[in-house]
Amino acid sequence: MTDADVVAADVVALGGGHGLYATLSAVRRFTSSVTAVVTVADDGGSSGRLRTELGVVPPGDLRMALAALAGTDARSQLWAEVLQHRFGGNGALAGHSVGNLLLAGVAEVLGDTVSALDEVARLLRLEGRVLPMSPIALDIEADVVGLESDPRVSRVIRGQVAVATTPGKVRRVRLLPPDPPAGPEVLAAIERAEMVVLGPGSWFSSVLPHVLVPQLLHALRTTAARKVLVLNLAPEVGETTGFSAERHLHVLSQHAPAFAVDDVLVDSASVPEGSEREHVARAAGLFGATVVYEDVSGPRANVHDADKLGRVLSRLCGQGRPGRDDHMVDISRKERSSWP
Amino acid sequence: MTDADVVAADVVALGGGHGLYATLSAVRRFTSSVTAVVTVADDGGSSGRLRTELGVVPPGDLRMALAALAGTDARSQLWAEVLQHRFGGNGALAGHSVGNLLLAGVAEVLGDTVSALDEVARLLRLEGRVLPMSPIALDIEADVVGLESDPRVSRVIRGQVAVATTPGKVRRVRLLPPDPPAGPEVLAAIERAEMVVLGPGSWFSSVLPHVLVPQLLHALRTTAARKVLVLNLAPEVGETTGFSAERHLHVLSQHAPAFAVDDVLVDSASVPEGSEREHVARAAGLFGATVVYEDVSGPRANVHDADKLGRVLSRLCGQGRPGRDDHMVDISRKERSSWP
Repeated sequence: MTDADVVAADVVALGGGHGLYATLSAVRRFTSSVTAVVTVADDGGSSGRLRTELGVVPPGDLRMALAALAGTDARSQLWAEVLQHRFGGNGALAGHSVGNLLLAGVAEVLGDTVSALDEVARLLRLEGRVLPMSPIALDIEADVVGLESDPRVSRVIRGQVAVATTPGKVRRVRLLPPDPPAGPEVLAAIERAEMVVLGPGSWFSSVLPHVLVPQLLHALRTTAARKVLVLNLAPEVGETTGFSAERHLHVLSQHAPAFAVDDVLVDSASVPEGSEREHVARAAGLFGATVVYEDVSGPRANVHDADKLGRVLSRLCGQGRPGRDDHMVDISRKERSSWP
Repeated sequence: MTDADVVAADVVALGGGHGLYATLSAVRRFTSSVTAVVTVADDGGSSGRLRTELGVVPPGDLRMALAALAGTDARSQLWAEVLQHRFGGNGALAGHSVGNLLLAGVAEVLGDTVSALDEVARLLRLEGRVLPMSPIALDIEADVVGLESDPRVSRVIRGQVAVATTPGKVRRVRLLPPDPPAGPEVLAAIERAEMVVLGPGSWFSSVLPHVLVPQLLHALRTTAARKVLVLNLAPEVGETTGFSAERHLHVLSQHAPAFAVDDVLVDSASVPEGSEREHVARAAGLFGATVVYEDVSGPRANVHDADKLGRVLSRLCGQGRPGRDDHMVDISRKERSSWP
């Protein structure tokens, strides 16, 4: 497949925050038809204040995804900069980004988050579309151990910020409400996609939530798209301190036993050759996936290089979907796996 | 002069708030080349909070002028609605309009109010341009009598809100700083204008401030444009309670003895025929002006009808400037006037 064939590929990238920003920056390098599906469980910072005060879907991660896909002309880039700009000082507006306020305002006028995103997208001459994982604001709740003197005692921690910063170990996360809807635009985009990319990102708060929305998980299972799971370059302080690459996979599989992917993309330097790669391969088998090792790290710590990541994703996308029969075997193999 | 000749007329409208909104709505009916010059002394509401918290030029009146000149297509009108939308509730954002926050944010990114206005203007497909009276935030200070038991005692009241709501009588207003700059774009627009319209609007806080900026007054005196002063339909509770039409003119003349206009436009119903019209004619003579009586009132109390006002202003604009020699005589006549 030539580069020209790939340009029109429909790609869906799921995630949130800086991880999704990196994926979108990579994907837009080889296609202008990208749909970002964004977590909406943030309860901290500007987003948290806005959802509390105005009852809107937390706009922060949506805003970042918009900025990542803004047109490359000077005016679109200026508007992206405006959206990302945060008010300073120590007054009522301190810490609010202009884009969060704008998204909240447009959503109030139009009465709908998706319409608001599409309108701001036009302002940015967006290459693609940004959609919320769910049309309603969600919350994350986690079972956390290590907070009591008895290490076996589990406590329930609620809220994305609380989960991301707990000194304990997160065992399991849930969404509140537990069965949130997924927007029809999201489901349609996944259904028609040629490639779906999940991750990188904060594992419990930006990656896992996607497979916890039942309609979204169903769409991810049934799409004919090639599915790529992109692992983080390193564990994240707070959410996944001390987690190995293998453990990231185990945790995801535990939360979505019926979820299969084609490729697990791992940065070569993040997992040394040898026994650790064998563990990762076995964990990837839980998803029926092949592990792809590539140099995808950038100059900034824990941030994927958009060019490198884009080249790898473009190549995988160009390869199309692996044989469907093989994949069914993979799934059955996964279901035999013995997660403790 | 035919309608077609008037379409390209350069018109500058000076004012602030709802008065300027009415003028702009009227002027855009006969020309797409309109420049709004807007007061920047507001210290109340959303604008006041933003200038205090962020140090920006108060955006409220600028935002209203933008909304008044927004393109008539659906998308521009939607953005105008977004700009005018105010957050509700009782939180940190309550009462802030989205447009004020956006203007403040764009101004912070671009480092300049005029550039920010031009950028938001493009978003609204503006028919014309909106400029601040001065590139810096100003304050209004007034000498007010009637606040002490001795009615001759004058007190200094500072701030637009305080001046607009004082129970006393405003005798004189000043700007702080007393000699603020006017932007070069404003001076150039007035110089090349075919018609300049001042008022209607809050007399002390939206109309008078324009002639208190020395560079602006100089530009208004030297332009070859036809100059029209539009009187309010009625006195305004607070600022001009009990003021006659004649007194509005006296007060303006007192603040700018060197200011001349060609026409004073008065709503027919607001000044009954007879002796009161003689007083208005005499007061208009202070500006070397002819009084034009027309039905320009609308269905809403104290709000000019945009269609009616537009037709009258279009006709006056089409007549061009009265003979320059006559006007010089008018000015000399004004300078002989005896304001107590």
